[in-house]
Amino acid sequence: MNNMLLPTDVVGGTFWLLSMAMIGAAGFFFLEKNRMQRHWQPSIALVGVMMLISAVFYHYAKTMWVNTGTAPIILRYVDWVLTHSIQLVLFYLILSATTKVSPALFWRLLIGSLVMVVGEFLGAAGYMSEALGFIIGIVGWLYILGELYMGEAGKANAACDDQAVHFAFNGLRLIVTIGWAIYPLGYFIEHLGGGVDVNSLNIIYNLSDFLNKIIFGFVVYLAAVGAEQKSPNSNKL
Amino acid sequence: MNNMLLPTDVVGGTFWLLSMAMIGAAGFFFLEKNRMQRHWQPSIALVGVMMLISAVFYHYAKTMWVNTGTAPIILRYVDWVLTHSIQLVLFYLILSATTKVSPALFWRLLIGSLVMVVGEFLGAAGYMSEALGFIIGIVGWLYILGELYMGEAGKANAACDDQAVHFAFNGLRLIVTIGWAIYPLGYFIEHLGGGVDVNSLNIIYNLSDFLNKIIFGFVVYLAAVGAEQKSPNSNKL
Amino acid sequence: MNNMLLPTDVVGGTFWLLSMAMIGAAGFFFLEKNRMQRHWQPSIALVGVMMLISAVFYHYAKTMWVNTGTAPIILRYVDWVLTHSIQLVLFYLILSATTKVSPALFWRLLIGSLVMVVGEFLGAAGYMSEALGFIIGIVGWLYILGELYMGEAGKANAACDDQAVHFAFNGLRLIVTIGWAIYPLGYFIEHLGGGVDVNSLNIIYNLSDFLNKIIFGFVVYLAAVGAEQKSPNSNKL
Amino acid sequence: MNNMLLPTDVVGGTFWLLSMAMIGAAGFFFLEKNRMQRHWQPSIALVGVMMLISAVFYHYAKTMWVNTGTAPIILRYVDWVLTHSIQLVLFYLILSATTKVSPALFWRLLIGSLVMVVGEFLGAAGYMSEALGFIIGIVGWLYILGELYMGEAGKANAACDDQAVHFAFNGLRLIVTIGWAIYPLGYFIEHLGGGVDVNSLNIIYNLSDFLNKIIFGFVVYLAAVGAEQKSPNSNKL
Amino acid sequence: MNNMLLPTDVVGGTFWLLSMAMIGAAGFFFLEKNRMQRHWQPSIALVGVMMLISAVFYHYAKTMWVNTGTAPIILRYVDWVLTHSIQLVLFYLILSATTKVSPALFWRLLIGSLVMVVGEFLGAAGYMSEALGFIIGIVGWLYILGELYMGEAGKANAACDDQAVHFAFNGLRLIVTIGWAIYPLGYFIEHLGGGVDVNSLNIIYNLSDFLNKIIFGFVVYLAAVGAEQKSPNSNKL
Repeated sequence: MNNMLLPTDVVGGTFWLLSMAMIGAAGFFFLEKNRMQRHWQPSIALVGVMMLISAVFYHYAKTMWVNTGTAPIILRYVDWVLTHSIQLVLFYLILSATTKVSPALFWRLLIGSLVMVVGEFLGAAGYMSEALGFIIGIVGWLYILGELYMGEAGKANAACDDQAVHFAFNGLRLIVTIGWAIYPLGYFIEHLGGGVDVNSLNIIYNLSDFLNKIIFGFVVYLAAVGAEQKSPNSNKL
Repeated sequence: MNNMLLPTDVVGGTFWLLSMAMIGAAGFFFLEKNRMQRHWQPSIALVGVMMLISAVFYHYAKTMWVNTGTAPIILRYVDWVLTHSIQLVLFYLILSATTKVSPALFWRLLIGSLVMVVGEFLGAAGYMSEALGFIIGIVGWLYILGELYMGEAGKANAACDDQAVHFAFNGLRLIVTIGWAIYPLGYFIEHLGGGVDVNSLNIIYNLSDFLNKIIFGFVVYLAAVGAEQKSPNSNKL
Repeated sequence: MNNMLLPTDVVGGTFWLLSMAMIGAAGFFFLEKNRMQRHWQPSIALVGVMMLISAVFYHYAKTMWVNTGTAPIILRYVDWVLTHSIQLVLFYLILSATTKVSPALFWRLLIGSLVMVVGEFLGAAGYMSEALGFIIGIVGWLYILGELYMGEAGKANAACDDQAVHFAFNGLRLIVTIGWAIYPLGYFIEHLGGGVDVNSLNIIYNLSDFLNKIIFGFVVYLAAVGAEQKSPNSNKL
Repeated sequence: MNNMLLPTDVVGGTFWLLSMAMIGAAGFFFLEKNRMQRHWQPSIALVGVMMLISAVFYHYAKTMWVNTGTAPIILRYVDWVLTHSIQLVLFYLILSATTKVSPALFWRLLIGSLVMVVGEFLGAAGYMSEALGFIIGIVGWLYILGELYMGEAGKANAACDDQAVHFAFNGLRLIVTIGWAIYPLGYFIEHLGGGVDVNSLNIIYNLSDFLNKIIFGFVVYLAAVGAEQKSPNSNKL
Repeated sequence: MNNMLLPTDVVGGTFWLLSMAMIGAAGFFFLEKNRMQRHWQPSIALVGVMMLISAVFYHYAKTMWVNTGTAPIILRYVDWVLTHSIQLVLFYLILSATTKVSPALFWRLLIGSLVMVVGEFLGAAGYMSEALGFIIGIVGWLYILGELYMGEAGKANAACDDQAVHFAFNGLRLIVTIGWAIYPLGYFIEHLGGGVDVNSLNIIYNLSDFLNKIIFGFVVYLAAVGAEQKSPNSNKL
């Protein structure tokens, strides 16, 4: 047996692409972190850590794919439970750096993301009905969106007069609104709709993850760079 | 043979989750360490090292689980003997940064944690009776709690007027009081009580480790960040 | 089976050479990054990340070659889609550090490189006719050259009076003009011309990649060093 | 075949413990290095490098043990020839940072450690009689002790009035006097005395290495921290 | 099959020793790099990168040796073509930091080292007669020596009044004169002289590489440290 990626294996190729892109992105954010303003540094560090965790996942998924010809989508939930939580925690982190937000917001965002991912996982893994898992996942996602648009997070963002925070918050919120739609959509197609072959779904999830994570990271990065350029003296060590 | 995590393998999934979370946490603390006040930096470094050691353990345990279908709980003692000792040393480190504490406290905390872990190990591995191992482990744990609440450590904490130290000390003490109860409890159930299947126990230990270590780390981190924000000029390199 | 590089295996030797050179180059740029002026640091970081991604590719390709005796050229597209995009993004980054350039230029350069690489990939992988893939690839490349010589990028470079930017821009443009010619040329020979044995093509691509990437990296590095020496005080942290 | 550490395998467990502890220690010293005074930094770097080399050795030894059930003690000499030399070079480094010592001292300490380790190796590997190897090893060790107590090193230490240097020098000398006695002792027992089973010897060597290296490292670290606290302004970058 | 180093395997032991020493040396130079004066930092970085590349080579060679019982000497040329070139580039780098030297010197030194290594490789691999390869290698080496003693490099060194540069240049030149003699000598013995068993040759090359590279690195390091101590204020970041 070959145990090596074949040239005609597009699914494996996207797994490989993702693992390389995530390692590169993690390296980039780790390198650039110290250059940022002090209060942006935890956010950049967390973005890099998200890429690192994702790189570990995709490295594993790629190896599994090449060795066994499968990479069950349910395995992705291990990655998502960590990386989606990190992404929502980032909303709190970005706001709290310049504005007064309650610690309870942190827990609400964290729990919202856990409800969304764990609900879908329980449905997909057969621990509850697939429809119930879907509904719980949707509820978690809608709760997050409510928090980001109309809840404490949305209000804090509206009240804050830091352009860099606005840029980051609005950009990230757009990703969570539009980009994340792929996750319940994919779940619906796989478990409730007519179904689609798992290969297509893996490719779709890979490319979605690529865009959702890489763009997410660079929105935070650009906001931090923008903050720095306005007040270049404030980030001296 | 597959030698790869299967989607329905929840135990393996939690091992995998832990290994990814620990690598990410280690990376985060390593990145953030230099930003902290000088006297908090060794604590943050040690927290990161604890995560790194744990990541190595969970990577090994995950691989063993996938390859052999077992990950005996006794193997965890190799991780615990290092990481629990580091956690108790951190109490000393946090106090000594701002207060006068005797070096003997360092050794008492270290020996207390060794008694707890090594006692349980000897019982679990069959080098002494399981009941005796349990008792020794409990004695070690109670001794630590006594030290932290009523001994030199507790008194030094009470006498110290540094808010960040109080926050860290009280938070960590709560984890050692409540969170660590899972370790003698799990031991009792496995070796003395009616017993429980090893899979459930592995899941329980994995999630406990996740909470006990990650929350432990972030309590130290938040204390260090809080200390910095009160006196932002004192941590210039 | 040996599964180890044999001394008479020149193709494998060049894969090995590349993987070692890329790791070394990544390490060098990572180490030197912090010494550069602030506005050159993202460029140096990106150059290092490009080397890191390429090192991962060549490590994989070397292992595949040794284990299976093949390293299909089509696998290179996974590397190229990332590294060629990074190289073109660097043109934007270098210009924008000292000059006003529109964000649209970033997207035009990125899309140009994607058209070039993805077009050739689709042709080489059989998703479209080989001739069409070739033409699309050529069009992407010519578009990039037009942008760099006569478009906004070329004009911004001409208008800018920063010697370091000129040095980097002109040097990199030369690599993209002359060095990158090997990629459509190799594609033409392999898929449209009489063909050449895949071993020769792998050696040619390896050495081209070595020169195109290493020299590309050092052009950026030398420009950053030159910028620093002219105004050594401006890059103090 | 399992190829994984079994829970009842105490020898393997100590190998595993050592590999994890050494990785953690290396990480800690690498992280803390930049915080130290300039003239203590090479010492801390060297201590970290010693841990890194040892981590590589113990990782290899652990894997060999698990795969083959053996980890011949003679393999340890590859580790010792590097790490023991580094430990003796550290005496020179610590003295020369604050005192005038001749470069010849460097070479005498280095050669002393090489005589000790290489002598024992040649005896243990059968290149000379086991008794002769033992004697040469003892001579090397005694020469080192003479140098450290009564030779140039000992005198330079006595003449130096830096408390941190005294603390480090005296602490390390004690380790070399008492802790290192285990190496000729183990050699004697294995090759000249009645012999002991190789498993016990491996456990003894593992724990000795743990104490000798970890304590050695922390003595240097504590001296550097102590030096810093006396003159906190002198280590600004 | 064992696939693990045996205690009586001295050749494998030296491969192992080298891989551990090179990793340690790379770590040391990477850690110490930032402490040096700005114009010495690229040299220290390059020395560390050379060690890293060599560590990769020796790790591979050790694994190959253990798995297959062979480690053909011709494989070393992949390492040498990179590391010998880096060593010669370092002469240029050291001179150019304090003196005016022409860029042509860089290319002459680089080409000299490539002629030396590639010439010997072509002879050893059978692409030209062994005698011709030997002669080309010798010519390349003699050209380098001429450049270093009587050419632009030698003159620039003589004209420069920086003691640290003199120390480094003269030390490194001595290594290239005496230490490098082992490479053509080994080639001659293996291919043109009566021959010697490949095991002895591997041990000789391993120990030569150890001395030539480690000492080379520390000569550069000591020069940089010496430069720093003369003007400690000039290397503030």
